[in-house]
Parts: sequence; C-alpha cells; structure tokens
Amino acid sequence: MVAFVDVENTARWARTVGFETIAIGLVSYLEDDFRRWEQFDKCPRIASHSTFGVIELMPTSDHETYGFKYVNGHPINTKTGLQTVTAFGVLADVASGYPTFLSEMTLLTAMRTAATSAMAAKYLARPDAETMALIGTGAQSEFQSLAFRSVLGINRLRLWDIDPEAMDKLTANLTPLGFELEVCASAEDAVRGADIITTCTADKRNATVLHDDDVVAGVHINAIGGDCPGKTELDSTILNRSTVFVEYPEQTFIEGEIQHFDDSFPVVELWTVVNGDHPGRSRADEVTVFDSVGFAIEDFSALKYLRDQTADTEFQVEIDLIAEPLDPKNLYSLMAGTQ
Amino acid sequence: MVAFVDVENTARWARTVGFETIAIGLVSYLEDDFRRWEQFDKCPRIASHSTFGVIELMPTSDHETYGFKYVNGHPINTKTGLQTVTAFGVLADVASGYPTFLSEMTLLTAMRTAATSAMAAKYLARPDAETMALIGTGAQSEFQSLAFRSVLGINRLRLWDIDPEAMDKLTANLTPLGFELEVCASAEDAVRGADIITTCTADKRNATVLHDDDVVAGVHINAIGGDCPGKTELDSTILNRSTVFVEYPEQTFIEGEIQHFDDSFPVVELWTVVNGDHPGRSRADEVTVFDSVGFAIEDFSALKYLRDQTADTEFQVEIDLIAEPLDPKNLYSLMAGTQ
Repeated sequence: MVAFVDVENTARWARTVGFETIAIGLVSYLEDDFRRWEQFDKCPRIASHSTFGVIELMPTSDHETYGFKYVNGHPINTKTGLQTVTAFGVLADVASGYPTFLSEMTLLTAMRTAATSAMAAKYLARPDAETMALIGTGAQSEFQSLAFRSVLGINRLRLWDIDPEAMDKLTANLTPLGFELEVCASAEDAVRGADIITTCTADKRNATVLHDDDVVAGVHINAIGGDCPGKTELDSTILNRSTVFVEYPEQTFIEGEIQHFDDSFPVVELWTVVNGDHPGRSRADEVTVFDSVGFAIEDFSALKYLRDQTADTEFQVEIDLIAEPLDPKNLYSLMAGTQ
Repeated sequence: MVAFVDVENTARWARTVGFETIAIGLVSYLEDDFRRWEQFDKCPRIASHSTFGVIELMPTSDHETYGFKYVNGHPINTKTGLQTVTAFGVLADVASGYPTFLSEMTLLTAMRTAATSAMAAKYLARPDAETMALIGTGAQSEFQSLAFRSVLGINRLRLWDIDPEAMDKLTANLTPLGFELEVCASAEDAVRGADIITTCTADKRNATVLHDDDVVAGVHINAIGGDCPGKTELDSTILNRSTVFVEYPEQTFIEGEIQHFDDSFPVVELWTVVNGDHPGRSRADEVTVFDSVGFAIEDFSALKYLRDQTADTEFQVEIDLIAEPLDPKNLYSLMAGTQ
C-alpha cells in the first residue's frame, strides 16, 4: 500500500493548519534540502512540448528517497475553465524502489513555489522591506502574499493584472485576512514605492511586464512567471544591472529570464546563499533578482513535508498501487486468485 | 477526477477476462502503435541508479495522448520478500495537460512484456515452432507462457531455473491449464529441441545463461532478462551470428544484450517488421534474437488497452488527484474552503 493525500485532503489539511503556518514549515524543509543541495541527483526536467503547452517530469533523489513530480503548463487552459498548472507527485524508497507516497500537487506546487520565493527573499530582500508589488494576480498570487507575510512580515501589497476580475478575486480573498491592498492602474504604478516586486503572469511568450525604468535601486525582484522557453517577463536590461540568483543553472538557462543570455552570464546558485557560502544581498542599493523556474528538489521537500505533516492523520489514506504477492516470484498468483 | 485501476481491480479484471484473451488484445494495441512508431516522441528512459537497483521514468507521447510509467528494478528485493519490479503508469491529455488515467502497472507490465515478446515471435519465430525453452521461471514466466500459447499456439515448455522452488511454482500454476511441461536439469538441457528460447532471469550482472553451443540453426531467442547496464544473459558470440531485433536502438545499446557492442552493430527495429518494411525472419535456419528491454510505447499501448477495457466497468474508479477550482485563477478558494 502507498500513502495517499488527495486534493480534498490537501485542501482540508491546509485549511486546518493555515497556509501561513505551512509556509514557515515548508521554508524549514526547503532550507534543510538547499543546505545539502550537493547530495541530490539533479537533471533539467524532462519536458514534452506541444502547441498547447508542456508536460514535464521532475525527478530527483538524495540516495535514500527518490521523488518526482508530474506537472503541466497550459496557459490556454484558463479559457476553457481549466487550471494552467496541475500536478501530482510521488516519493519512493531508493533501497527497495517501492513508491511510498502519492499526493496531489496542484495545491502543493502553489504552496512550495510561494515558500521558495519567500525563502529566497529572506536572504535577498532588504531587511526593512515593507511593501510588495504583485504583478499578476492569478492562481499563485494568494499563496505568494501569504508566504511573504508569514516569512517576512510583508503586509502591504500593490496589485496589478491585465484582468480586473483577477484583481477583484485577490482583493476578496485577502482583505478579510487583514492585508493592506492597493489596486493599481498599471505595472509601472504598482512598483512605485515597492521594496519587493513579484511577477507571476502566465502568458506563454516573451512578454515585458517590467521595464528597466520601473526598477529602482535596492529592489528585490521575485520573478516567478518566466519558466519555460519563450516565456519571460523582464526587460533583459534589468538583468544586466542586477545580481541574479537561480535554482539550477542548467535548467534556468533553458527556461528562466536568463534564457536571453548564454551560460557565461553570471548567476549565483541560491543554495550557496542558504548554506552561507554566498552573502546574498551585499548592499542596500543592489538590485537582486530571483529568477525562479521551480526545481525538482523543491517538490521533493514539499512532498516530504506533506507526508510528515499528514502521517497518522485523517488526511492520509492508503491506495492499492503496488502489487504485493506473498511469494515475489509468484506474481501470477495475484491474477489467478490463488493467493 | 482521474480514472483509476488499482492492483486488486487489475487482478480481478485479468481473472475475469483471462490473460490469454488479454494477450491477444494487447498484441493488437501494440501492433497498432508499432505501425505508427514514427509518430511518437521517444527518448531513452530516465534512470536513477543506486547500489540497490534502478528507478526509471518512461515517458512518450503521440501528440494526442501522453503517457509515462514509473518502474523500479531491484533484483535483491526477492531476498526480503519484495518484488524485483513494481510499476504504475499514467495517461494524460496533451491538449490540456490533465492526467486522465492512473493504474497499477506491476501486473500490467508483466502482461505487456509477455504480449510484446509474443508479438515479436509472431514475426520472428519459425511458423512451425511448437516447443519453447523457458530459462528463468520467476515472476514473468507464467505471463510469457500464456501469451506464447495464446498468440502462437506454443503448448510445450522446457523449464530451467537455478531455483527449484521457482520451477515448482511455475509447474503448479501451469499444469492445471493444460501445458505440457518438462523440468530440465540445466539451461543446456532445456534448450534441446526447443524452437523458441525465452531467457528471463533477474541477476543484475553480466551472466551467461545461454552459450553459443546451445543455440542451433532456426531458433528464435526471446531475450527478456538483460535490460540494464551490466545485466545481460547471452554469450555475445550468439549475437554475432544472429539477426538482432530491438525496440529502440538508442535505449537497447545502453541496456540490452547489444551493450557489449558499439552502435555500429547491425540491428533491425522491430516496428519496421510490424509495419512490413522488413521481412523479419528470412530463412528457416536463421537465428533471430529479440533483444527486449521494454520501451515506453509498449506501456502506452498497455495503459490505453487497460483504460479502454475497464471503462464503464466496476474495475475502474475515480481518484481525486487534480484540483479543479470553479474559477481556475482562484486556486486559493479550494484551500480557503470558500468554493
């Protein structure tokens, strides 16, 4: 039997615990795994591109536990009432090869992406940061907002989205939680006075949601939406005058904002900041960019966190996914019904 | 919701329909997909090797449906009462990226491997073949035997395994089904008079279960067990005087019997035989080898077959694996419980 957490149970668990508490727990698991980054098997995700979108498998292993995520990215889906991103994930025991844990990861990916952003900002944003501009108020935006409040104390948000209904939705979701929200007239307007800029738009093309003129000294940019070839959000001039932090350069040069440059473009691997090898932000007037595309180790951390937090609770059930004949050489007995 | 067939339902379905009937259906689906082989996205499977075994992901797509299998290979598992190979698989809709079907594949992999072997033998064994030597009588052996009887009419089996209990197990399983079985004293003994030789042993090393002297003219060798780097079964001299048929050369040169040679070694891709481009066996005295390692397209065919055969039956249930908020941009509503 494989332990299983479905969508309804993930949602109920998150509702019961509260995402602000979960974000802190996730950051702790993420930091543990980022500190031992070198122990993991790593490869760029295995992408199957189509004219509609992309389907990806993201495996990793720390030689004790193996994990992978299935995830799609289909920006056109929202036009037919479907999610842009859906996902599920699996953990397995390296010693036996047996899967041990299966869970939905549409919600969990939103949580881990927000927690990873907040973790990066902890090291890269100015310590006195109080206001975040949120450009793109789609499915990821509430998770980003809650993680940044929980981990960094950011309670003031300046919003912009080309879809007014998406801004109304975010406002309706976050106002009751005590956020100070300002709905802005444009991306340029939203970034005014912001200490942190989060871009999480979903267009599958090279857009420029943020221009060089909009970025003032000392800002931290949390660039979430540019995450596959041909899909970027930033004027590349911004990158030239910033310190750019990435998860896994081999993947980010394919998928991230830095796809506009060749691999001689200087980047800092985020794990070296978390483990103390790199200082992160070094000056108050430095512009820092977290060019986030999402990496398999973050899903691994999130799966372990969900597994551990739901173990021995009503949120985790068992699923009959792995055949277990009494005699391993007699697999046929299961089919014959002679076991 | 995602359609789901678990182990118990796969076993009940197979018991209800009978594997000999299933083998014929699987061969039909396999032949359809082998005929349109060039339409599929193909890559060698993505392997995570450890000292214990290997965990692999095997994706493919025909641009309408995407499929992948998770599978492990841990020969040491049988020592602790676990399966050498366990697996599960997923189909997804390329247009939306949504998973549509999840199933156990430990049983289904055994079925598709046997059906693929029988399909290959249909084109490669002598039409007058009556007797099969079965070297290795582990978890795969009953499936091979039943598929060869169903597809080629082979009812006479000559058995050999280094584990006498494994031979007893096969005998107990197949005698009631009317097979003519001869338990032999060695691999050399087993292949005497056999028209087809199936090798399906599980040692993770370069073994030589079949020597050159044992192979007479006109034999078809169905080589199943050599399927990862450092794990082969045949004296490579045999390969030099045989016509070798493979699934996907890029993968077989890494994992199959032909790993002893470089990629200038001549091989025939099995799909070209199925679609009529290559004649398959051309002479009665030719030695043919199907150097089978298992390829993603075979799992894709098997998943589609199981999905179609269990649709609208009690064997298929729904699983809550994919978050579906009413407003796709309001994923948070699921967590907040406001939907």
